[in-house]
Amino acid sequence: MKKIAAGIDIGGTNTVIGLVDENGTILLKDNVSTENFPIPEDLVAVACEHIKKAIIRLGSDYQLIGIGIGAPNGNYFNGTIEFAPNLKWQGVVPLAKLFESNLNVPTVLTNDANAAALGEMTFGGAKGMKDFIFITLGTGLGSGIISNGQVVYGHDSFAGEIGHVIIFTDGRQCGCGRKGCLETYCSATGIKRTYSDLLMSKHIQVDVQTKVADAKYIYDKAIEGDKNAIDSFNYTGEILGLALANSVAYTSPEAIFLFGGLAQAGNFIFEPTIKSFEKNLLNIYKNKIKILPSQLKENDAAILGAASLIWMEVKK
Amino acid sequence: MKKIAAGIDIGGTNTVIGLVDENGTILLKDNVSTENFPIPEDLVAVACEHIKKAIIRLGSDYQLIGIGIGAPNGNYFNGTIEFAPNLKWQGVVPLAKLFESNLNVPTVLTNDANAAALGEMTFGGAKGMKDFIFITLGTGLGSGIISNGQVVYGHDSFAGEIGHVIIFTDGRQCGCGRKGCLETYCSATGIKRTYSDLLMSKHIQVDVQTKVADAKYIYDKAIEGDKNAIDSFNYTGEILGLALANSVAYTSPEAIFLFGGLAQAGNFIFEPTIKSFEKNLLNIYKNKIKILPSQLKENDAAILGAASLIWMEVKK
Repeated sequence: MKKIAAGIDIGGTNTVIGLVDENGTILLKDNVSTENFPIPEDLVAVACEHIKKAIIRLGSDYQLIGIGIGAPNGNYFNGTIEFAPNLKWQGVVPLAKLFESNLNVPTVLTNDANAAALGEMTFGGAKGMKDFIFITLGTGLGSGIISNGQVVYGHDSFAGEIGHVIIFTDGRQCGCGRKGCLETYCSATGIKRTYSDLLMSKHIQVDVQTKVADAKYIYDKAIEGDKNAIDSFNYTGEILGLALANSVAYTSPEAIFLFGGLAQAGNFIFEPTIKSFEKNLLNIYKNKIKILPSQLKENDAAILGAASLIWMEVKK
Repeated sequence: MKKIAAGIDIGGTNTVIGLVDENGTILLKDNVSTENFPIPEDLVAVACEHIKKAIIRLGSDYQLIGIGIGAPNGNYFNGTIEFAPNLKWQGVVPLAKLFESNLNVPTVLTNDANAAALGEMTFGGAKGMKDFIFITLGTGLGSGIISNGQVVYGHDSFAGEIGHVIIFTDGRQCGCGRKGCLETYCSATGIKRTYSDLLMSKHIQVDVQTKVADAKYIYDKAIEGDKNAIDSFNYTGEILGLALANSVAYTSPEAIFLFGGLAQAGNFIFEPTIKSFEKNLLNIYKNKIKILPSQLKENDAAILGAASLIWMEVKK
């Protein structure tokens, strides 16, 4: 009997389901629209049907040993999604329990960044590491902190919100209601704002809403040699490097992994980040902590991370 | 046979040795001058003699089960003190090994703030907690972070340097060579500087060197109603509250314990700190994380913390 774990990534728009073996190979992958199911029980019923059919498709020598779920505002201790602003589901949703009672296998849930960090440790560049930080540079800045081989969950399962560290008092307005959060600078949204501000300060006419649609646009401009685009990456990296240097003073990781759209800008973001990082590190940490690109594929990271929740339990 | 652990606190001036039972009672306490021993082996020999004699004094039904050491720049993984600027001993000193081979009992070493954090968990206000942060507000700002019941050591044993988080870029010059470290504001040294700066900005003549000898002086002035002293505490608390709110975004502790001279100023420091803390917390953390005074006695904390290194191993 071959063992297989389901990895489920709950997103605001789509829910992605994958069947993942212990080597991190995704054997089957499926999509369900999250938005179409205003009631979570309905999504769970459909998702479980998908999983059952997928296992039948794989053949009778496969056995589902558990379900791992990565979800926004996921509470690992309770297996719940709690007040997720990007989902239609309100309040506290006992999602792990719903899956568990439908498919009768152990189900573990955590937030998406923690799941991806575990994915990096189980299947990616952090194999064999016990202390590292995983940063996702997407619309916001998400983070998962691994200390002594375990996710740092904190007392309430909501640790690891590095995107909401206040890096500049009275800095940029953040969606959380406060000012100066790291993610208002270091994220796709952040660099868009930096680039727009830079153009506006130089009175360069640009229809920001239309043209600067995403960080990819700024990356393409940087490739073309656009100084404003390059300066925007440098500014973003300078702040990110400072924030990561401060992060080291908390958990002294062996490495910090950068993931997500912005991380794919390669040296445009890594060079200024590493330069600022080393400059701002306390002496005892200098020249020994690596800043690395994630080794997880953009499209598979969430599923691999979710599935690794199960594979980690198995290996305990 | 009653079991007993030795707790040793290595300080720049004095080394304090205590024999501690499993309830945290200090049965005997002794002092050796650290400064008088430029060679660590000599101090170890004398300290071990003290321990042997002390156990004989206690009586034949006591058995030494181990030695815990708290030391500046202590490396838990290697049992070494590494390049401690406040000690005469240079380079890397294998202190745990030296004690172990002399007294033939397991010896564990960590830095002083981590030791004190463990003391708080074993014998103080953090009993039963698995996630908390311990802050010492002394000459500098030291910290020990407990996550999931374990000290966060990081990959190199040097995690937990919250005093060296850069809170203001281009802020005050720090002894570490960088600018804007938290401890340049939030420590006995920090509040002295704040108070002096405040007086100077108002052209109040004061022989700062002589009069503002320590944070206790500013506390006494605050008790008398001196507005500048009270404002200095408020400023210190405002920055400390911000820094602690940022710290929560890393490890989401159940509580944060404040220890050391400055923490003994009671409401003068706790009120502004808690006010700023709650103001600066991300919504999901508000009104559920306690900022508390340490329950360890100032003079016993280091020994209790060091001894708890052994008692924790026993309880594993």
